[in-house]
Amino acid sequence: MRPPTSRYAYVKDGPAIYLDSFATIRRESDLSRVPADAEKLAVRMIHGTGQTDLVDDLVVHPALVSSARTALAAGAPILCDARMVAVGVTAGRLPSGNEVCCFLNEDRVPGLAREWRTTRTAAAVSLWEPHLDGAVVAIGNAPTALFHLLEMLADGAPRPAAVIGCPVGFIGAAESKQALVDFAGETGIDVPYVTVRGRRGGSAMTSSAVNALAQEAE
Amino acid sequence: MRPPTSRYAYVKDGPAIYLDSFATIRRESDLSRVPADAEKLAVRMIHGTGQTDLVDDLVVHPALVSSARTALAAGAPILCDARMVAVGVTAGRLPSGNEVCCFLNEDRVPGLAREWRTTRTAAAVSLWEPHLDGAVVAIGNAPTALFHLLEMLADGAPRPAAVIGCPVGFIGAAESKQALVDFAGETGIDVPYVTVRGRRGGSAMTSSAVNALAQEAE
Repeated sequence: MRPPTSRYAYVKDGPAIYLDSFATIRRESDLSRVPADAEKLAVRMIHGTGQTDLVDDLVVHPALVSSARTALAAGAPILCDARMVAVGVTAGRLPSGNEVCCFLNEDRVPGLAREWRTTRTAAAVSLWEPHLDGAVVAIGNAPTALFHLLEMLADGAPRPAAVIGCPVGFIGAAESKQALVDFAGETGIDVPYVTVRGRRGGSAMTSSAVNALAQEAE
Repeated sequence: MRPPTSRYAYVKDGPAIYLDSFATIRRESDLSRVPADAEKLAVRMIHGTGQTDLVDDLVVHPALVSSARTALAAGAPILCDARMVAVGVTAGRLPSGNEVCCFLNEDRVPGLAREWRTTRTAAAVSLWEPHLDGAVVAIGNAPTALFHLLEMLADGAPRPAAVIGCPVGFIGAAESKQALVDFAGETGIDVPYVTVRGRRGGSAMTSSAVNALAQEAE
């Protein structure tokens, strides 16, 4: 087997591509907008989206990075709303062989969704409950999953160590993320989070956030 | 098991969320910029990113939709550069139980990447060759994968029916997509494609494109 004839001049070295990308992001983004210990988190979330102005919409709780790092080092599971988020997590970066879970395809989910008149993604969040205490939550797809989680927490569900709450889209996404930002003030339940205001979000941004929180090293 | 106490007013009906989302996109986007038969494709790619101005950067080959639809109906495999793209494809929408392949984790890949001094993602594209004739290619992560594919095609590799070429990022992404746009003019090898100019791209946009091409029905 042979490689094709070289035709284009482009960087082919994986680590160099990362380094050059991160340097470009740092040149072009105003990273002073996020807490100092969240600088690498912001860089990697921008990297996942290709958009340096993402930083303008990021909201990072002051305890997010320390809480998530401590939890992951201690072996906390990562609870994902979508399989795309789960497969975007780089296993080699996880500090304690942390479990990466997505319960969307569990047998019980379609029945619960029908019975509760909600989405399957939201119903699957209820299956997180036994794992939620001290976990890292990664929501990168469904606004209904984030709303459902906040409703569980308001009802007294165990508190995760961190919520990466970045659902994407046109219906409920911006509203669910605003609810996350307002949650501690409204309920007194202060869970560290990172989110992005508005419609942007998604699985790439969310798994990039997990990958940034998994290790200090870039 | 019980659902949490309702606290927020939000749409919980999956099909209604899709319909409302697509209606919002059609209200806010200038879809006259894409070929008429690519309107639903553009809507779904916008849906995957939450950004209506994506349409300004879309470039859709006039034969893309018909070629991809025909190929998928006939059972063409879908060749993905990243697992996130592969898991984002909705199996239930595929018209012929089409195979969705990602060879990134094959045993041979790390060795080929070292030997060829390229990324693993690019090396894995060479493993597509026996499946490439008439396939639907879905590149949503790595610029090196798209450059590598174009170099294979220039060398005479079998032609896919369609290339969804949407790598994301800061190093080589815009350049690789420009190379895709210029490829037929430079080589005479005219492969239908869809791409997005600039840095934006990603697995969500790419699997959304596959899902749009898989079925006419939204």
